[in-house]
Amino acid sequence: MDILKQRILAEASVLNSDVLKVDSLLNHGVDPELTMEMGREFARRFAGETVTKIITVESSGIPVAFATAYELGVPLVFARRKRTLIGDADAYCERVPSFTKGIVTDLIVSRHLLKAEDSVLFIDDIIANGDAARGLLRIVDQSGARIAGIGIVLEKSFQAGGRTLREMGYRVETLVKIKSLDGNEIIFED
Amino acid sequence: MDILKQRILAEASVLNSDVLKVDSLLNHGVDPELTMEMGREFARRFAGETVTKIITVESSGIPVAFATAYELGVPLVFARRKRTLIGDADAYCERVPSFTKGIVTDLIVSRHLLKAEDSVLFIDDIIANGDAARGLLRIVDQSGARIAGIGIVLEKSFQAGGRTLREMGYRVETLVKIKSLDGNEIIFED
Repeated sequence: MDILKQRILAEASVLNSDVLKVDSLLNHGVDPELTMEMGREFARRFAGETVTKIITVESSGIPVAFATAYELGVPLVFARRKRTLIGDADAYCERVPSFTKGIVTDLIVSRHLLKAEDSVLFIDDIIANGDAARGLLRIVDQSGARIAGIGIVLEKSFQAGGRTLREMGYRVETLVKIKSLDGNEIIFED
Repeated sequence: MDILKQRILAEASVLNSDVLKVDSLLNHGVDPELTMEMGREFARRFAGETVTKIITVESSGIPVAFATAYELGVPLVFARRKRTLIGDADAYCERVPSFTKGIVTDLIVSRHLLKAEDSVLFIDDIIANGDAARGLLRIVDQSGARIAGIGIVLEKSFQAGGRTLREMGYRVETLVKIKSLDGNEIIFED
């Protein structure tokens, strides 16, 4: 998505060779029209797949996952990180490290929101090492549902997450791939 | 919104006389079409106000806040709860208790996402005691921006949050008001 590359070049900042700050675009501030365009793009790319549900992880994946769910006309489920007091004892749970938060959290999805007959498209904003993604995929596996595919807005392809998921056999679509942040410079693939 | 009342009666469950579980509708599973309808309703109700930005708190307010921002054609900002490793030192911060989580968290908004000339509409999914809402309003005050109004999907009017905000002089619009959950029964106002 060229428009997204342009916005990243204009608004993102490189914090170090591993971390890109995109907080006016993806994980703190959100442009609704651009986000709906991302949702339409994922809907186009996965048009040939059966998708009955979109799943993501709170919080920053929610806007683009919502946009994709709206475009495809299917429900959205967002996994919660750690239990709340009103949490459901009857929930799938996977423990995952968080790359940006530097802590370990539990991903929780209530059992009644994932059915064995679901075909689930996982949408998220950024993939680095893919720990949260793999945790969420284990939850989908536990439920007996099928993974229809994985859509990621921004893949840092110099980190292992996207490659690992492809090696596991999943179809992974990313809107923008960044191959390097070295020397304070954003280098896109192709 | 009658459609929302019907969905609450069909899908929500009363956990105790203070807590309604709406996890298939609002804070875990999301119906995108219904959520866009909520966004259109907020856009209609605040059509006479100048709104330059929507603000909410992660996570469960994000879908309806996104829908409202999309309908009004303005950016969305969601406050983060607690600092991440890539957090911005240059951020507004307010400490608030969480009713459902039973803990205290920090609300964080990067300074560059709120400007003194903004006119901000705060959108959230549920209001109970209103602690997070008041924390977020203090952040908007710190930035010098104006509060254009407050839109809440579900107000538990037997708790003080909505009333307190109205007494502070804010325009508060709620889509559904619940006046009691006693005896395991959901009673709407009017």
